[in-house]
Amino acid sequence: MTAPSQPISRADCLAADARDPLAALRQQFHLPAGTLYLDGNSLGALPRNASARVQQVIEREWGDHLIQSWNKAGWMTHPQRVADKIGRLIGAAPGEAIVADTTSLNLYKVLSVAMTLARADSPRATRIVSERDNFPTDLYIAESLARQHGFELVLVDTADIVHHINDQLAVLLLTHVNYRSGRMHAMGALTEAAHAAGGLVVWDLAHSAGAVPVDLNACNADFAVGCGYKYLNGGPGAPAFLWLHARHAARMDAEQLWQPLSGWLGHAAPFEFSSDYRPATGVSRFICGTPPIIALAALECGVDTVLAAEPHGGMAALRAKSLALTDLFIALVEQRCTGHGLDLQTPREHVLRGSQVSLHRHEGAYAIVQALIARGVVGDFRDPGILRFGFTPLYVGHADVWDAVEHLVQVLDTREWQQARFNQRAAVT
Amino acid sequence: MTAPSQPISRADCLAADARDPLAALRQQFHLPAGTLYLDGNSLGALPRNASARVQQVIEREWGDHLIQSWNKAGWMTHPQRVADKIGRLIGAAPGEAIVADTTSLNLYKVLSVAMTLARADSPRATRIVSERDNFPTDLYIAESLARQHGFELVLVDTADIVHHINDQLAVLLLTHVNYRSGRMHAMGALTEAAHAAGGLVVWDLAHSAGAVPVDLNACNADFAVGCGYKYLNGGPGAPAFLWLHARHAARMDAEQLWQPLSGWLGHAAPFEFSSDYRPATGVSRFICGTPPIIALAALECGVDTVLAAEPHGGMAALRAKSLALTDLFIALVEQRCTGHGLDLQTPREHVLRGSQVSLHRHEGAYAIVQALIARGVVGDFRDPGILRFGFTPLYVGHADVWDAVEHLVQVLDTREWQQARFNQRAAVT
Repeated sequence: MTAPSQPISRADCLAADARDPLAALRQQFHLPAGTLYLDGNSLGALPRNASARVQQVIEREWGDHLIQSWNKAGWMTHPQRVADKIGRLIGAAPGEAIVADTTSLNLYKVLSVAMTLARADSPRATRIVSERDNFPTDLYIAESLARQHGFELVLVDTADIVHHINDQLAVLLLTHVNYRSGRMHAMGALTEAAHAAGGLVVWDLAHSAGAVPVDLNACNADFAVGCGYKYLNGGPGAPAFLWLHARHAARMDAEQLWQPLSGWLGHAAPFEFSSDYRPATGVSRFICGTPPIIALAALECGVDTVLAAEPHGGMAALRAKSLALTDLFIALVEQRCTGHGLDLQTPREHVLRGSQVSLHRHEGAYAIVQALIARGVVGDFRDPGILRFGFTPLYVGHADVWDAVEHLVQVLDTREWQQARFNQRAAVT
Repeated sequence: MTAPSQPISRADCLAADARDPLAALRQQFHLPAGTLYLDGNSLGALPRNASARVQQVIEREWGDHLIQSWNKAGWMTHPQRVADKIGRLIGAAPGEAIVADTTSLNLYKVLSVAMTLARADSPRATRIVSERDNFPTDLYIAESLARQHGFELVLVDTADIVHHINDQLAVLLLTHVNYRSGRMHAMGALTEAAHAAGGLVVWDLAHSAGAVPVDLNACNADFAVGCGYKYLNGGPGAPAFLWLHARHAARMDAEQLWQPLSGWLGHAAPFEFSSDYRPATGVSRFICGTPPIIALAALECGVDTVLAAEPHGGMAALRAKSLALTDLFIALVEQRCTGHGLDLQTPREHVLRGSQVSLHRHEGAYAIVQALIARGVVGDFRDPGILRFGFTPLYVGHADVWDAVEHLVQVLDTREWQQARFNQRAAVT
């Protein structure tokens, strides 16, 4: 890491918190006492109102009104209602996105459609290009579809992506913010380049939605998917979302195109119980089975916590705070952890950074994370040797960052991490 | 309908309830006052403990322990734990079934694998045979896979199924109990016939699991899927399950076969974050994305309500009561609704009947159902002209059946159903 800049004190951090116009948003969350939670990029914290809302859905809507809630409680339109709220965070117009299933399954749907469209327009372009370091589920789903349909999945290093945007490209599949490094792609420029080469782009917003400003329509993007349980605070295994540009939705309508997971609720008229599939119009055809009503209620509470920033500047304000927090963390680590072998993995340039900071250490990264967790500082570990810290500006403050680094300093200075108990790998890391 | 037998009185029904060894199981459920709920085949009733259990998952496991609950609260093994409980109801050994996604998606997975295996063994057998009256999502998913892989989807009338079990059959796709008629197939005999012809069978247990005894291994079945929110009482849009026979699981292991929805949690070592997909062994490869923890908690409560019958004779005892209730309903309708144009759609023979009774009427079926609902008797309507009544023996009693028929008699005798308010079709019927 680089040389330390002007020393930052805890008092400086408290002063920054006192000035923070978003500080009150933290009150929306239940955060356990004694925990500094820097893992909202894995599982967002619990919105205070989620439990009561879910209780209401279970006891009143399910318990008292039973099947009548499909109409009377708006269960049928719940996926669209929540999707329209998410749309406000990612530059999607109402009716363009839908909540359904999981990120992996939604990727299967939109990548399959993207491949179909690409093949129709450029039959000889059969490459799906992605990053070697993309989140594995994206690569596994792409690998499955490539095998099924005779495409080639080409995995490249980040710096080589631009060299693979050529006339062989069918679909560029990228995660906007990398799960491991926190590096962010230039969505607009890469989309434009892919289009110029005759290709389409599928963006995975798992680490973007609710974390960084995204404007899918302004970027003229093609397809996107994303996760409900990270920065959208929707709860463990929350439903995911997908989006496609209106031009592709219109083309699917005009050509009566299917998505492959053609379940009954993506039918144009599911309650006709016809034996023939006829896709619903627009994004509605991407619904498959019966929507998960209880989980949707929790997800809506989570999305609402992000929308609560709208009166205070919305995603732009959250982004400013997120950058302040990650800048602060980087500066404090550089000032206070010199000589401990920590290397910054996340880009310093703001335009290349998501809402997390990743550090690398050749030895002991897993144990250091465990020692921090034992102290109540919850980040996580990713192979190889990555200490990963997420900064959700809704509930993380500047003094939290200072305190987290103080614990890191102590864990390193005292070699606490070398204790055997911190070196036993759990099943889930 | 046939001529009435010996008149049955409400007192007879009360006496039957007093003798019912399963009557106390009703206390497991919250049932709204003034409602006779005969729609557990669409959405099972609320288990009393579900709300508190979900609250605990949300507030303690998510809220207090956050990501650590993946290990410490057993979230990672939750899908297997619930599947093993469901397995006790369907003749599946521990580790053979898994809970994941939706019925439609699970059908996509197992039907795709069944097609792959069938093609490998009999390359010229390319027919997927199903019933014209099968639940639409099954047909839509089959249609999608048939289009993708060059198979032919052949839809036949129920009586003609046996004539299509021949050397052209790749996969026979049947729902064990028909959603509209309540007719049940002979799982063992049809499976044996399909195997003798060189085909495989996929069984949809949506209206069977928790409703009728099923023994997949005794039937030597190949693949099965099923629904969590009907007779398993798992809540609206609950996760679904799937099963495959150990011989197919072993073959998939030996030949390193994929299922197409190859998400990260179906990987052999998901936390290695390898860029190459390597399927997990056995049924675990059929998991795709991150499991829906909150919904799984509700589903487990629902499955437990069925397992609570085990000390009282389990599924055999539930089946005996279910047949008594459907016999009673048929007899009462035949005794008391003569001349009202109701035709029995559900087979009289016990071996052909699930846990529901469907009646047909040329005119007014939708409005009659609405008039009954207004009186608190909740059944549902299915085109064309079907009044559908489900009898969940866990919470429906003999006097409930008598009272439901009494309301039906009044709705018909007074022509109450002809009121305009009962003839306006809702979006969801």
